[in-house]
Amino acid sequence: MLEKKAGKQTSQLQKFPSIIATASIVGPKEGKGPLADYFDQAVDDEFWGEKSWEKAESKFMREVLAKVVSKASMAMDALDFVIAGDLLNQCIAANFGIRESNIPFYGIYGACSTIGEAMQLGAALIEGGFAFNVACLTSSHFCSAEKQFRFPLELGSQRHPTAQWTVTGSGGIILSAEGDGPYITRFTTGKIVDMGIKDQNNMGAAMAPAAADTIYAHFEDTGLSPDYYDMIVTGDLGKVGKRITEDLLSSNGIRISKLLNDCGLMIFDSKQDVHAGGSGCGCAATVFAGFLYDRLKKGKLNRILFVPTGALLSPTSVQQGETIPCIAHAVAIENTKGVNQ
Amino acid sequence: MLEKKAGKQTSQLQKFPSIIATASIVGPKEGKGPLADYFDQAVDDEFWGEKSWEKAESKFMREVLAKVVSKASMAMDALDFVIAGDLLNQCIAANFGIRESNIPFYGIYGACSTIGEAMQLGAALIEGGFAFNVACLTSSHFCSAEKQFRFPLELGSQRHPTAQWTVTGSGGIILSAEGDGPYITRFTTGKIVDMGIKDQNNMGAAMAPAAADTIYAHFEDTGLSPDYYDMIVTGDLGKVGKRITEDLLSSNGIRISKLLNDCGLMIFDSKQDVHAGGSGCGCAATVFAGFLYDRLKKGKLNRILFVPTGALLSPTSVQQGETIPCIAHAVAIENTKGVNQ
Repeated sequence: MLEKKAGKQTSQLQKFPSIIATASIVGPKEGKGPLADYFDQAVDDEFWGEKSWEKAESKFMREVLAKVVSKASMAMDALDFVIAGDLLNQCIAANFGIRESNIPFYGIYGACSTIGEAMQLGAALIEGGFAFNVACLTSSHFCSAEKQFRFPLELGSQRHPTAQWTVTGSGGIILSAEGDGPYITRFTTGKIVDMGIKDQNNMGAAMAPAAADTIYAHFEDTGLSPDYYDMIVTGDLGKVGKRITEDLLSSNGIRISKLLNDCGLMIFDSKQDVHAGGSGCGCAATVFAGFLYDRLKKGKLNRILFVPTGALLSPTSVQQGETIPCIAHAVAIENTKGVNQ
Repeated sequence: MLEKKAGKQTSQLQKFPSIIATASIVGPKEGKGPLADYFDQAVDDEFWGEKSWEKAESKFMREVLAKVVSKASMAMDALDFVIAGDLLNQCIAANFGIRESNIPFYGIYGACSTIGEAMQLGAALIEGGFAFNVACLTSSHFCSAEKQFRFPLELGSQRHPTAQWTVTGSGGIILSAEGDGPYITRFTTGKIVDMGIKDQNNMGAAMAPAAADTIYAHFEDTGLSPDYYDMIVTGDLGKVGKRITEDLLSSNGIRISKLLNDCGLMIFDSKQDVHAGGSGCGCAATVFAGFLYDRLKKGKLNRILFVPTGALLSPTSVQQGETIPCIAHAVAIENTKGVNQ
């Protein structure tokens, strides 16, 4: 059986669910970014033939589910569960994207940390014997997110220098009780951290303390040294949040600057005018499903700590003067079945 | 180990997590309904001293978490996880209600089925050894829901005869690896079912096929006869949805009319002018945490199948002409540790 000590945030797995397939479909801007070659598909139109951005976002998720099942060479009904979420009100990208799958479904919401939450719950369902195969999917869409969280695109509003650019895309993975890796070896479940940041145009700064809290708990709980991992990769802190996370951890004796990368900084080139970097439920999901999984499968990376980060705000909470609660979920992914601490 | 056969929706537990405490706080209208005596508290003002309905809804959840932990005679940090959700955009009632708890958190979204989803995931985390104690909470609020999903309350819009009344309240439960029951013995995870209903004023009719689908799968998977249970209690189908569910199951050879009840019909009196009945994430949660748990603890009920139901729509999806995808999650709760099929 697995170990999770009372009062600790980290669960050490013993059966090591394997990530047997991934798929990613992105939008036109992501398809011109530095990771373009790693995605399965880049569509050239944000509508992708649909009548609304929301319907297009559902299509991204539906098509990613079909693609990842096909890449795993399995039938759809070999999935025991689909776990999925997105940023839209009432998670409609997931609900409408998954509705034809006919698979038992758990909808989740962790803002941009959602893919990390999905991987943890999926791994737990497999480890506990509830499932053999679980699909985890998330999506986001620049246009549907701007419309919902910020301003009508037609206004052409100027963006704040610390603002991030919501990734258009969906990433999916299939976890399985059997497979030849990479494996999920342990995970650290985040707590909500709210340090009082109110600026929704600076979500990197809001999320950084949550990322630092979870990363700190991971090393505290496991006794591992940060350089056990080849890379520690956060979800979408962007330029501003990444620097704050490094500083916060460094002041607590954990130095990870050489190991730390961020999906929001990897998916776009600084010339693409995205200001502080990418964000959205689709950011960490597509960078993992595209680039990181490829690097793991090819042995260029052997052990990573993947830490998707989420800002749990809504336009209503911002308008009511609330601060921004944040969360980060860490998942260790390794090519060998991992040491037990 | 537990059993869950491939292609089946039902998980049979073997360790039987115990529901060791529940708590419920409701609004003024619910506090005048037939279940008034079973709730821990009924507040007499929808604002509950806060400046907005959304902040009040967060307070319901925060206070229910404090209360259920206190009723379980445990410290907050004895919880391994909190799993929570609500109806508000980006689930802010849960995110803001839980943020001071300092407990590892999984946010979920299953519309009004959310408490069923939380109980399933909580039971799975305990059964798999990931947790000893898990809190599951949901909330809804009539005023914040009307404002978000329907019309400004100030308009005094006339309500449709098939419309339901969102419950103001929050219900919470604590699941534990040890306890003297009632126990979660098995659960059936819902699939998304969308039969093409577009009328958001008739969500009972939209949700009925999802309820029937999950209840049918439960008996098909387990081989149990419906009268194994003392009561089958759906979440918030209301008058219209309950009748359709009975009809759908009856035409498939499953007759449960004498056993079937619905939280949306139990929480309000027909004289309270709620039309088809109550609804919302808080409906099934408060009726379970208040009334049903009391009946189980006192042996008035010994085996129930609790089936919270959710309509996975959003105002945006309705405005874009989409139909309403729905889901229902079934949880078997019994005073003895249950038969293994």
